[in-house]
Amino acid sequence: MAETVTVGFEKSESGGECSSRVAVGTLLLDAATEAGCDITATCGRRGRCRSCRVKLVSGGFSPPTVQDRVQLGHDDVQENYRLACQTRVIADGRVLPAPPSSETGHQIRGDSIDSSRRDYVFDPGVRKYKIVAAIPLDENEQSSDVDAVCDALPDNIVRRLPMDLLRRLPNLLRGDSGKVTVTCFNDDIINLEAGHNSDQIFGMAFDIGTTSIVGTLIDLTSGEELASVSNVNPQAVYGADLMSRLAYGQFDEKKIAVLRGRVLSIVNEFIDEACEKANVTGDDIYKIVVVGNTCMHHLFLGIDTSYVGLAPYAPTVSDGLVIPAKDIPLKRAPNAQVCLLPIVAGFVGADTMAAILATKIYQSDEVRALVDIGTNGEVVMGSKAGLMACSAPAGPALEGGQIQHGMRAALGAIEKATIDEDVHLGVVGDLPPIGICGSGLIDLVAKMLDAGILNTMGRFRDKEFDSLPPALAARFVSQGKIRAFLLVQAGESGKDESIVLTQMDIRQLQLAKAAIYAGVLMLQELMSTNDDDLAELMICGGFGSYIDIESAVRIRLIPDLPLERISFQGNAAHIGAQLALLSETERQKAEELARTIHHVSLATRPEFQDIFVEACNLGSSKPEKLPA
Amino acid sequence: MAETVTVGFEKSESGGECSSRVAVGTLLLDAATEAGCDITATCGRRGRCRSCRVKLVSGGFSPPTVQDRVQLGHDDVQENYRLACQTRVIADGRVLPAPPSSETGHQIRGDSIDSSRRDYVFDPGVRKYKIVAAIPLDENEQSSDVDAVCDALPDNIVRRLPMDLLRRLPNLLRGDSGKVTVTCFNDDIINLEAGHNSDQIFGMAFDIGTTSIVGTLIDLTSGEELASVSNVNPQAVYGADLMSRLAYGQFDEKKIAVLRGRVLSIVNEFIDEACEKANVTGDDIYKIVVVGNTCMHHLFLGIDTSYVGLAPYAPTVSDGLVIPAKDIPLKRAPNAQVCLLPIVAGFVGADTMAAILATKIYQSDEVRALVDIGTNGEVVMGSKAGLMACSAPAGPALEGGQIQHGMRAALGAIEKATIDEDVHLGVVGDLPPIGICGSGLIDLVAKMLDAGILNTMGRFRDKEFDSLPPALAARFVSQGKIRAFLLVQAGESGKDESIVLTQMDIRQLQLAKAAIYAGVLMLQELMSTNDDDLAELMICGGFGSYIDIESAVRIRLIPDLPLERISFQGNAAHIGAQLALLSETERQKAEELARTIHHVSLATRPEFQDIFVEACNLGSSKPEKLPA
Repeated sequence: MAETVTVGFEKSESGGECSSRVAVGTLLLDAATEAGCDITATCGRRGRCRSCRVKLVSGGFSPPTVQDRVQLGHDDVQENYRLACQTRVIADGRVLPAPPSSETGHQIRGDSIDSSRRDYVFDPGVRKYKIVAAIPLDENEQSSDVDAVCDALPDNIVRRLPMDLLRRLPNLLRGDSGKVTVTCFNDDIINLEAGHNSDQIFGMAFDIGTTSIVGTLIDLTSGEELASVSNVNPQAVYGADLMSRLAYGQFDEKKIAVLRGRVLSIVNEFIDEACEKANVTGDDIYKIVVVGNTCMHHLFLGIDTSYVGLAPYAPTVSDGLVIPAKDIPLKRAPNAQVCLLPIVAGFVGADTMAAILATKIYQSDEVRALVDIGTNGEVVMGSKAGLMACSAPAGPALEGGQIQHGMRAALGAIEKATIDEDVHLGVVGDLPPIGICGSGLIDLVAKMLDAGILNTMGRFRDKEFDSLPPALAARFVSQGKIRAFLLVQAGESGKDESIVLTQMDIRQLQLAKAAIYAGVLMLQELMSTNDDDLAELMICGGFGSYIDIESAVRIRLIPDLPLERISFQGNAAHIGAQLALLSETERQKAEELARTIHHVSLATRPEFQDIFVEACNLGSSKPEKLPA
Repeated sequence: MAETVTVGFEKSESGGECSSRVAVGTLLLDAATEAGCDITATCGRRGRCRSCRVKLVSGGFSPPTVQDRVQLGHDDVQENYRLACQTRVIADGRVLPAPPSSETGHQIRGDSIDSSRRDYVFDPGVRKYKIVAAIPLDENEQSSDVDAVCDALPDNIVRRLPMDLLRRLPNLLRGDSGKVTVTCFNDDIINLEAGHNSDQIFGMAFDIGTTSIVGTLIDLTSGEELASVSNVNPQAVYGADLMSRLAYGQFDEKKIAVLRGRVLSIVNEFIDEACEKANVTGDDIYKIVVVGNTCMHHLFLGIDTSYVGLAPYAPTVSDGLVIPAKDIPLKRAPNAQVCLLPIVAGFVGADTMAAILATKIYQSDEVRALVDIGTNGEVVMGSKAGLMACSAPAGPALEGGQIQHGMRAALGAIEKATIDEDVHLGVVGDLPPIGICGSGLIDLVAKMLDAGILNTMGRFRDKEFDSLPPALAARFVSQGKIRAFLLVQAGESGKDESIVLTQMDIRQLQLAKAAIYAGVLMLQELMSTNDDDLAELMICGGFGSYIDIESAVRIRLIPDLPLERISFQGNAAHIGAQLALLSETERQKAEELARTIHHVSLATRPEFQDIFVEACNLGSSKPEKLPA
């Protein structure tokens, strides 16, 4: 049996500590998870970011790796900072996770359906029938309890009860002299209650994103929103981006079960939380609509995602589904039917389908584009004549991942920048900055382009520094061979080091934004349209809402359209989920649409490489008057 | 907290002992069950039979009751014999159950479908498709794993997978390069296996009777019977007859759960046993047909039977059902679809429906009758023009219940009798007799009628004994005020007492047989037919097969038809279950028929009392030349 050692993890905020007993050689990140101490591994434990940084307090650990030195620098490594994803436990020891493992003030957009929105039919599909069933009284009648209930219902209701209702029926029927409240979803009986007490019908719409999960509780008798809940996806500790998450669970049933457990727990918690806020009971939730990308959709259902992460990224099931809550299981809404919207393709999931519903792009007379900017971006383009969709694997840079000082849009994140004689930063919460979030990164790069700090190829100026204002020129620094631009001095930042943007960070952003932009360019080419033909570019997704449009256009993340043709759609996936919750017509529409959308696989297109390279440029292909 | 005491139960055969710790005042019968020592309570713990007789060895128990004295007699009570259903535990004690708690050699008829039978369509509905699914390879194709499977199946197959199959699909599909064996039941996908290895499709047919349970394993590719298993219903310890069983569990969820647990356990055990006999695996059982009376049907499904035991005896569900094994749950055949045949009425259950299928009475040109003789008898009468059915609550006398020396048709049971100058008995297993079973009772009473020992009113001869052979005359004895007829002297019986038939036993038989016969008479009256019009009287049910037809006619258990118009159908319910297993056409037929059969509730008919009183007579209503 392997020798085991104990690792303690200090909790800086509370002064508390948790610990785990693990085999010698265990990865520190795994030891932390085992101890119940979540350390975020944004890059998927590949030593390519700093999110899992810890300080070794005492005890025996493996020596620092090249990744430690590259990501943390010589000084930090000397001070016993390490990447938890690179360090193995050798002997008993103690560790201080840093930065704090739970970010605060993280911005997640829920977005509700505008109450003035009138472009959908209100038909949630759930209906309560208050019947007085004729309890069998005549021996000659031969009628059963099921007959008694079904005879009192409209003819369209299917004469079939789920097993659990059948088991409860005899007592239910006689509990209040045949008075029964029958809940139906479309033509199916889904619940029975004794008496005529309850009129309440609630529903929830969930958008399970890679980064965050949002849920909204809606009164399905009125359409009124009662409560909204959101949080980061608790799977994030196993990798911030989708591919990291997929890689973590690949061909490992136990790890997939861990990922699944995390998402089920939080959805159940959200149901509780929403019900508590609205002072209702989960028993009265009868319909839940869930959207998410294919990976989240499959994990939610407990389907092995190993192959979703491998070309050709085929989903196991793409049809829309309706599943009783007990088969998921969602214990906090035991009477609900859980509806999953259909999937278009492996990386164009049910969330995109929901965004299509929300934006009604399928009804448009003119060609429009829908762009979900995120770790895994999606582009949908077309009109009522037809839609094309592709996925644009941007990677985590736009959400602060794989950026040396990257972070999510939480308190202390640099989210805006202006550059004149010097750099001026906007920070979430007006706090001393501790990192750079995606919108900040876009804004910084746009302004650095304008200021001549970067050229359109994304390279830092390497000469003629004296043509720059002195304060800017002084900000060019080096990390070994890597060039960087100093944003915040150690003394002014909210942490014990300075904040810089490196040449590698710029490259990460370029790759990310090129993926999105290349998706747009490719669909334009396939549809033989151009920017002039594009009636509207609709930006959706939680992240998209925070970016500065002018900066996004400046760095060519999105096409250079007049601003009035660019719109923010907010969290369109979540809005679409709510539409499908409020309207069976809309949910049905999604089923129909999913089969007609033409999926384009960017990577398999011969012309894609050229388009991608062109899309990497930060400015128009016309060279600007900057030193190359 | 209640004071507790320990009760030990000696096992006479093994010399072993089991014990339980129970609250003071607990019924000895319950203490025995708690200890894992099954004591049969034939009369449903009403102190009206002797089946739960025990000997108190030591310790403290409640004093003997009136029932103890009536059933056991003064001498036995003096020797510390008691009825376990009447005795309560007061202090620590030890008990010897007697007779031995498990009867041996109990006769249960399974009955198979005659292999020459050609009057049904062989279409079990289960089919295996060996497909080579096109594993998604092209990113542009957008196809899912479900698409890959369904595209390789005929169009009639519904494009929907149960949740558990969906979860296993990704690995299954790729386990053998897209080779998948898909099992369908009618148009539904019910199982998936990787590869093309398995051709095996098995099914089981179960008849869950109040007294015994029979199961047959059949190869559904050939129709060949592979194994048959049977045993007494392990619920019998909670009452031998249906009404006792229903009363035991009435309005007591825990007790219903106990009854349910017993039947589920034995069905699971039977699956195991049959598979072991035939050397096959339960995983290859894809269809199970279950028939039984409404009580057994509902208990099997976990439906509260409280109201099935109360007028108007309405079933909770009467429609035929198809339920996945996991929802029952039947863990030993996890891939099976469990089909329950429809119920006609509360006391005309799925077993009768199966007997109707088996006998094809619904196709007859002439009027026929189907009589299931048992604790709960059923009579079905009619032709292709229509069927009527009624239940005839005979009570347990015909199965030896509530008869002082009654027993089931096990080793040592008197099953036949001839009377000339004296009484000559036929005993199961040619052993010293230990009791009288139902067929023996019928034979005895018929021969006693012939010999002038009884009159047609069922009264023992009370004068002119000298006109009888002396050996017979000497057999008239008394038990207190109760007259009786001695069958076996204590010294010649297989137990330590003599075996008698009392006047009360005769009355029990009369009530029992009158119920059956009144059912026949009532349906004849309602259908305006008479014995001459009756083309055939078909006797079915496990018990019916053992009775002597002439004796049954003699005591007017069944109409006085020429013997060639009376047939034995064996365990027709079990045969019908097998037909529904082998043929979806037959199972469908049952669904259609169930809704058309006219149910007659005997008890609610004003003319029933007269018919019943008339049916109590043991001979034709013409008085015979016997002293009254």
